[in-house]
Amino acid sequence: MRVLGVDPGLTRCGVGVVEGTTGRPLTLVHVQVLRTPAEDDIGARLLALADGLDAAVAAHRPDVVVVERVFAQHNVRTVTGTAQAAGLAMVAATRLGIPVHLHTPSEVKAAITGSGSADKAQITAMVTRILRLDCAPKPADAADALALAICHIWRGAALARLNDAAVRAKAGVRTAPTRSAPIGVRR
Amino acid sequence: MRVLGVDPGLTRCGVGVVEGTTGRPLTLVHVQVLRTPAEDDIGARLLALADGLDAAVAAHRPDVVVVERVFAQHNVRTVTGTAQAAGLAMVAATRLGIPVHLHTPSEVKAAITGSGSADKAQITAMVTRILRLDCAPKPADAADALALAICHIWRGAALARLNDAAVRAKAGVRTAPTRSAPIGVRR
Repeated sequence: MRVLGVDPGLTRCGVGVVEGTTGRPLTLVHVQVLRTPAEDDIGARLLALADGLDAAVAAHRPDVVVVERVFAQHNVRTVTGTAQAAGLAMVAATRLGIPVHLHTPSEVKAAITGSGSADKAQITAMVTRILRLDCAPKPADAADALALAICHIWRGAALARLNDAAVRAKAGVRTAPTRSAPIGVRR
Repeated sequence: MRVLGVDPGLTRCGVGVVEGTTGRPLTLVHVQVLRTPAEDDIGARLLALADGLDAAVAAHRPDVVVVERVFAQHNVRTVTGTAQAAGLAMVAATRLGIPVHLHTPSEVKAAITGSGSADKAQITAMVTRILRLDCAPKPADAADALALAICHIWRGAALARLNDAAVRAKAGVRTAPTRSAPIGVRR
């Protein structure tokens, strides 16, 4: 499974592509940060971001695009730009027929570090370790985009197992302990 | 001058095109409300909206696109969708090389009704009168999009006169009373 994660932002928008399946080492395919200068017109900034996101999705043809869910409560000052960047990422994916999923920041933190309140340094350290990188992805937006993609691969597998179990339970089949690998990094 | 106004929204997005110049009767060119069903996937909704806005801008080729400025403070529950719709409208315009302007709701209300705290009924009534329509544009999103376009034509003319006066004053030219028509509806 190839997943493209987007940490949405107008000034810096992280894009990270990860390939793999749960229980096996994941691979970094691509990481970049799209930037638009704060002094440019808002229309020009949004168009540059739309073009960059379209190009990234077209170039990497992921199976799914995962975008961080934007909460209006947090960061009231920047929520508009963040929401707009997230919207453009969802349009880029849907235009190419690629499904979109949203994960909350705490879902991502919990999946990657085991704690829903992990800080940026912890996220970056775990992403570096999980993808076996020689150096940490920078800035934080790059690491966050990769974290989203990793989270989706791991959570997706977990949710698929839960769904399977529910379907079997409904069908009256006795649920046997699953033999698939545990979720998480093997240490 | 032909102005396309956008009252951004994910469930209902108003689009109104008005043509004219200050001091002369303005003309309604087009009005529509783009709708996306709340039960659809967010990606599908945003793409439908992007396509609808692209089509409206391409069909009417306005001189300027005016979008209501989104405030994160108001309406926290819906601000994300509103911001995303506004972003898509700005991308649609910029992609075709059309300048984008933002006006706040109170600027629009003040320009149209004389009061920055006018209610929706007052806005609709004034838009109907200004454009000499046989019946009121509905829903409110349609009237709001037309109000934005009207506001821009009137404010644009006023700002242009202020700019001219400032330039003349700076150049040491005595500012003569302007002979252009007053801003507003003639009654």
